[in-house]
Amino acid sequence: MKSNETGQDQNIEPEKTYSRRTILKSAGIGSLGVIIGASGLGGVISARESASNSAKANKNTIPFYGKHQAGIATTKPALLYFASFDVKTESRAELIEMLKDWTKAAAAMASGEMIGGTQNSVYLPPEDTGEAAALDTANLTLTFGVGPTLFKKNGKNRFGIAHKLPQELKKLPAFSLDALDKDWCDGDLCVQVCSDDAQVNFHAIRNLVRIARGKAILKWSQEGFQGKNNPHTKNETPRNLFGFKDETVNLSPEKKMDFDKHVWVQSGDGPNWLTGGSYLVVRRIQMHIEVWDRTALGEQEKTFGRHRITGAPLGKEKEFSDLGLDRKDEAGNFVIPVNAHARQAHGKGDQPLYRRSFSYSSGMAANTGTLDAGLFFMCFQRFPSKQFIPVQKRLGQSDKLNEYITHRGSAIFACLPGIRKGGWIGETLFS
Amino acid sequence: MKSNETGQDQNIEPEKTYSRRTILKSAGIGSLGVIIGASGLGGVISARESASNSAKANKNTIPFYGKHQAGIATTKPALLYFASFDVKTESRAELIEMLKDWTKAAAAMASGEMIGGTQNSVYLPPEDTGEAAALDTANLTLTFGVGPTLFKKNGKNRFGIAHKLPQELKKLPAFSLDALDKDWCDGDLCVQVCSDDAQVNFHAIRNLVRIARGKAILKWSQEGFQGKNNPHTKNETPRNLFGFKDETVNLSPEKKMDFDKHVWVQSGDGPNWLTGGSYLVVRRIQMHIEVWDRTALGEQEKTFGRHRITGAPLGKEKEFSDLGLDRKDEAGNFVIPVNAHARQAHGKGDQPLYRRSFSYSSGMAANTGTLDAGLFFMCFQRFPSKQFIPVQKRLGQSDKLNEYITHRGSAIFACLPGIRKGGWIGETLFS
Ligand code: HEM
Ligand code: HEM
Repeated sequence: MKSNETGQDQNIEPEKTYSRRTILKSAGIGSLGVIIGASGLGGVISARESASNSAKANKNTIPFYGKHQAGIATTKPALLYFASFDVKTESRAELIEMLKDWTKAAAAMASGEMIGGTQNSVYLPPEDTGEAAALDTANLTLTFGVGPTLFKKNGKNRFGIAHKLPQELKKLPAFSLDALDKDWCDGDLCVQVCSDDAQVNFHAIRNLVRIARGKAILKWSQEGFQGKNNPHTKNETPRNLFGFKDETVNLSPEKKMDFDKHVWVQSGDGPNWLTGGSYLVVRRIQMHIEVWDRTALGEQEKTFGRHRITGAPLGKEKEFSDLGLDRKDEAGNFVIPVNAHARQAHGKGDQPLYRRSFSYSSGMAANTGTLDAGLFFMCFQRFPSKQFIPVQKRLGQSDKLNEYITHRGSAIFACLPGIRKGGWIGETLFS
Repeated sequence: MKSNETGQDQNIEPEKTYSRRTILKSAGIGSLGVIIGASGLGGVISARESASNSAKANKNTIPFYGKHQAGIATTKPALLYFASFDVKTESRAELIEMLKDWTKAAAAMASGEMIGGTQNSVYLPPEDTGEAAALDTANLTLTFGVGPTLFKKNGKNRFGIAHKLPQELKKLPAFSLDALDKDWCDGDLCVQVCSDDAQVNFHAIRNLVRIARGKAILKWSQEGFQGKNNPHTKNETPRNLFGFKDETVNLSPEKKMDFDKHVWVQSGDGPNWLTGGSYLVVRRIQMHIEVWDRTALGEQEKTFGRHRITGAPLGKEKEFSDLGLDRKDEAGNFVIPVNAHARQAHGKGDQPLYRRSFSYSSGMAANTGTLDAGLFFMCFQRFPSKQFIPVQKRLGQSDKLNEYITHRGSAIFACLPGIRKGGWIGETLFS
């Protein structure tokens, strides 16, 4: 579903800026300016003013401003670029300045504009790095979150916000079978960038890293993807790298009541700055492709408790049929085995998650000739303590899938509420 | 341009197989079979037979068979997955068997079929790993090449083909400023997978790795991308990560005479098994994003010898205008500086290359908080000794761009001629 159905602000009056698409039309004039500059005779590019409004013209644009941040209830596009940052400055003012600069850049990018417009002096580095010029916005969303360490690190109240730390925002407990590598864990800030174009994603992260320079640095990052583009099966549930449909049973943004109950933080849940936001748990889960690929289909299906082709619960025909956890076969065994992933993840059905994950592939696992690939698991929720944590406790102990996966990375962030027009990322937290 | 304009065989009579798209329609029946299997009562999925022909139905399919391999003269799609393999078996027969299995799988994937069809026993691992089921073929191409070490390694004639090694297929010489890391160099075999869907690409590489098991292993791999999707600027030259249009001056597959002269190996050039093939040089070139991003626009433009916005040669207005290398400014200096990349790469204009590169981004450079990103440079040619090698010799010595880039990986492969219907990858080499 598109964001306009889920509380994003549709009444946007974009500033008078240059769209990435119109910049090219005015290039004939623009280049004259450049020439003068480049040959040492002048300073500023005289690019033709353009009042074009790409945000309105462009249907692949998801509003940046709104009640909730985009990138949560908005449709999952093909590609993810997730980045975790460590804040290096000790100055609250500098951090706020950076967040304000990020806001401006993010709003521009999300509406397909060049950061800082196109008026570049030849004597200065261009404000926008340029590689997304002429590209579609490709449903770009940027979603910002804050980690527990932004509030307090080594006992230190870093930016005067320690008293605002929500109870729910704490480092996740260690789970059974965790094999975490600190290179894929934690972070003071996170940005989830999603779009249908890898270059648009790269451009977004790269420009945020650049703006952060001297104030925050990239701690770790992960790109991800989902298969998406068959026009004949548009509503097909995407498959994970084990070949099974994934996110069949999931909270749906189309059910606003569910989202208010289980995804969006509500007023009174904790400190008010987070109302309208959501807790994001990310787990970088390696999937042992080679082991799985040597496993018989029947075993694979028992592992998930579902059929591979249809995605239906074992013994059923339709993907969206109820799991039917009580069903037994003639020998008296559960049709969906006790340790099947679907059964263990379902539990009593009272810990619903909104999963919004992407597959990842990161070349080779070191020197093994095998692929380092898996699931970049992401879920949003109102109460980690009542949703992700108890589910993962159960999975860590009893999930048959554990024979085929290893959790390598982990982090939790509070994704901020939506940004109002004229506001900035973190405004509710720092004001 | 589409492959049908460039010698790919259009008269394909696809076998009677299951298309990835129709498999889902027959899933109602299929799943009954699965159920029986999974509960231990039966063996084989009774998926409904389907005579559907997805290769014809699907317009995003590029023919696998033809005079030349697809993926060279065919339009560059959004995403690349490149893989280099080391052959581990010492048996010529096993190597040939693997190449034949690769051929079958590649032909199936390129036409959107499941590898091995959909008749899977629950007692066996499925032949196709399944994650591309229901996905479009997304213009998938698979292009296979052989490296010099396949012929001879440590003085050993490994597979009885040492006498077939072309003179032109040798490890590239060391160039000035090379900083190669062996983890990104060489290989006995390569596969270049291109498509518009990351999951389709992953599926292709993963299934080839799987089929190779016990015979060859992944040596290294690299994913790449180009920005692509603005419907308003379809013919816009894509930009590299420095924000400049790249591949403006390039051999064009639309000019068949140029391709015969400079890209396709011709009969008589060397051993005949390569006629219709092409030499591929790959260079993994890191681009120092952070340094570039602090450089003034004027300097950036002088580095390439072109304007950023338009892509026009310095002092000119149109992207496709002649470089005009003789032009001088009032002070008597060349308008396009002596060390500008365009000038140095152009030389006397008699070493034309067909470049078909992708940008890459591979997370963070180790522990620096900076991005490991750059250009996965690929070029095809008839004579490396007269094309890539002299150009790179010049660039290594005199290119101003060297201040901003580092060559980290290097390899050369002979991309095989096209595969005839009923033939197999490497047939001309091993017969
Ligand atoms: C690589 C790791 C994982 C894979 C491949 C995976 C795959 C799947 C698959 C195929 C299903 C069944 C289809 C569906 O309903 O979506 C499923 C269901 C589910 N998974 Fe996972 N999953 C993984 C990890 C996790 C983790 C870490 C959690 C949360 C802690 C989780 C929570 C769930 C939930 C809540 C369901 C729905 C259960 C229900 O029917 O109520 N999964 N998963
Ligand atoms: C990260 C490295 C590189 C970058 C960013 C880069 C970028 C560019 C750009 C922006 C142009 C001008 C526009 C165009 O005509 O396409 C260009 C031209 C060219 N480059 Fe590169 N390039 C790189 C490496 C190389 C290498 C390694 C070679 C070959 C050894 C090469 C060969 C060429 C050629 C032949 C031209 C066209 C020159 C002419 O006008 O005839 N480039 N490159």
